[in-house]
Amino acid sequence: MSEAMIPADLPLRNDLIGEVPYGAPQLDVPVCLNVNENPYPPDHAVVHSIVERVKQVAPTLNRYPDREHIELREAFVKYLKEESKADLTVDQVWGANGSNEIMLQLFQAFGGPGRSALGCDPTYSMYPEYARDTFTAWHTAHRNPDFTLDVDRTIADIDALEPSMVLLTSPNNPTGTPLPMQDLKRILDHCQSAQVAGAADGVHPIVVVDEAYIEFRDPGTPSATTLLGAYENLAVSRTMSKAFAFAGARVGYIAASAGIIDCLRIVRMPYHLSAVTQAVALAAFDHTKEQLSQVDHLRHTREETAAWLKEQTYNGKPLQVAPSQSNFLLFGGSFDDRGAIFDQMLQRGVLIRVVGPEGWLRVCMGTDEEMRRFREALVESMRVVEHA
Amino acid sequence: MSEAMIPADLPLRNDLIGEVPYGAPQLDVPVCLNVNENPYPPDHAVVHSIVERVKQVAPTLNRYPDREHIELREAFVKYLKEESKADLTVDQVWGANGSNEIMLQLFQAFGGPGRSALGCDPTYSMYPEYARDTFTAWHTAHRNPDFTLDVDRTIADIDALEPSMVLLTSPNNPTGTPLPMQDLKRILDHCQSAQVAGAADGVHPIVVVDEAYIEFRDPGTPSATTLLGAYENLAVSRTMSKAFAFAGARVGYIAASAGIIDCLRIVRMPYHLSAVTQAVALAAFDHTKEQLSQVDHLRHTREETAAWLKEQTYNGKPLQVAPSQSNFLLFGGSFDDRGAIFDQMLQRGVLIRVVGPEGWLRVCMGTDEEMRRFREALVESMRVVEHA
Repeated sequence: MSEAMIPADLPLRNDLIGEVPYGAPQLDVPVCLNVNENPYPPDHAVVHSIVERVKQVAPTLNRYPDREHIELREAFVKYLKEESKADLTVDQVWGANGSNEIMLQLFQAFGGPGRSALGCDPTYSMYPEYARDTFTAWHTAHRNPDFTLDVDRTIADIDALEPSMVLLTSPNNPTGTPLPMQDLKRILDHCQSAQVAGAADGVHPIVVVDEAYIEFRDPGTPSATTLLGAYENLAVSRTMSKAFAFAGARVGYIAASAGIIDCLRIVRMPYHLSAVTQAVALAAFDHTKEQLSQVDHLRHTREETAAWLKEQTYNGKPLQVAPSQSNFLLFGGSFDDRGAIFDQMLQRGVLIRVVGPEGWLRVCMGTDEEMRRFREALVESMRVVEHA
Repeated sequence: MSEAMIPADLPLRNDLIGEVPYGAPQLDVPVCLNVNENPYPPDHAVVHSIVERVKQVAPTLNRYPDREHIELREAFVKYLKEESKADLTVDQVWGANGSNEIMLQLFQAFGGPGRSALGCDPTYSMYPEYARDTFTAWHTAHRNPDFTLDVDRTIADIDALEPSMVLLTSPNNPTGTPLPMQDLKRILDHCQSAQVAGAADGVHPIVVVDEAYIEFRDPGTPSATTLLGAYENLAVSRTMSKAFAFAGARVGYIAASAGIIDCLRIVRMPYHLSAVTQAVALAAFDHTKEQLSQVDHLRHTREETAAWLKEQTYNGKPLQVAPSQSNFLLFGGSFDDRGAIFDQMLQRGVLIRVVGPEGWLRVCMGTDEEMRRFREALVESMRVVEHA
């Protein structure tokens, strides 16, 4: 599918003229380590449950689905209790077609002309797209050189900008950096009295923590969902796409105060979540243990790969690796032509991602065999580019 | 699920304060004739295909779906060729999670602050929601008293308003009124030189024809999709939710010039359409004949029901029935308290819809048994309300 060539007589929004569709290339490459998928497919028990659940729902597909997806929301509650020890009720959770749609609904409810959102860069490259699509101004407070949050600067920027939403990402993408609870609490506390430009007095920003990759954190590290009882201004976005090995099913969800969920209910499309999507997600939650069975191994792969990367050199200098609590690693730091290394890797059948600050590349954790090919390809690619 | 009670300190968009989630009540009622579903479930062959297709895709769900959903778009092309004799290519069609998402993407691409959209009321009650969610001004050109399009007035309003989008609905919802091809062509021709407020010179409005219910039209009536070769400014929205008996699967699609599709590709969420949704839709297209098998019967039910309704009286006057090419009928016209009739029907286990101009109610075509109960309940309900 070619890139967009929009005829000039079409009334495309003025600010979209020249834009192209967002997304990593979908290439037919043997080793795909570019979009942070879980490389291990659902096991037989999960496939069986999916088929059984779909068999049940298929004869009812002439009818609209449960708009409030209550059974699935009960499954989110149960899962967050098990996985994160969060005590939540059904009116504190909400699902959508991927966390993309969750984030879009947040921006639709809380953004818009005259509103702004603040993130901490380098961070997830979709955030500016949600902002653009909802006419929300997008600003960033720069992270520290080691990619940890600069809390003082973030708080100063909140005061200066008066955003309606503060977006924090834990672990951060593309750096893998975790967000310590004390940093999050400082920002939550501050936002409880911060102003929102263009809103009435007494309106304060919400804090959205994007925990897309949270299951890959070190065991015992708390999730922001455990703070939901204490903070009405907190929303935590999660997804089944990553650790849960369910990217193809497109199920994202959010845990937040019931008030925030009610705001999303105003802007959601009616029946946004299909009966099949609800059934398939329930099937996966029937097998939480199996779906997450490779998380330990992928964490181990991350640690091994990080150690190996640090032993490699480029132009005589060891590679840097950002400490990651996710299933990917941002590495390099001093690649003078990261595009060339990406291309060389691709020629060797290994697709990684050009993302993050100049000089860095991101790789997600694949199977053992995929990581072997990654290492081999990277060593060769660096040598070719060094001598080019 | 209770209606939204939004705490005042949340930064909900100012213009959403006081809004409630859109949607017909989802009540547990024996006879649901309120959301224009096809009352006949998918048959065994379709259920079998759905299960087989899902069985194939389930082991791959750790991977993201085909973002461009090419195989499904090929199925849209094939179906539109068979159903509407439209000659289209894959780059002229596009799918989404229900035609709701199609319409939202259209408004996201072509609407926004400073832009406006024009519809012809009474018409589908979601259009103002799409407009609101995208900060697009929403205006309506009133239809004739018999609910046909007032083409002269619509063209005058296009000139006065300079919208970026003109929304026509054929058959119209909630009136069932078809849109004659010559009326559509007049508007398309006019839009080819009409101005768009806030856009550069030489930019002209697009015309969106919402054909959600088109399969219920009289056989032989052309679809707007047959005009796509001749008009670059035309987009035709379709859905699998109605005649196709697939509301629970949430699959809408659009046929348009490739340029318009490319505009939607800019604003779509990446991977908006799950691998399971794609598989399930393909399974239904494997059985187009079975999925549409009840359309003739529902058309017959509509004609019978319309004839019966015209024989009924309320306060001594015969009921009016809007001529419908859809699977629903707008009837009454002189109900002095339509809410009371709705309530009486509901007490008798029959859910219809309070929608359209004052004095009218809408009912969609159910099974023969459901329609028998509808008739019985309506007669009783009108008698009770007449004598109240």
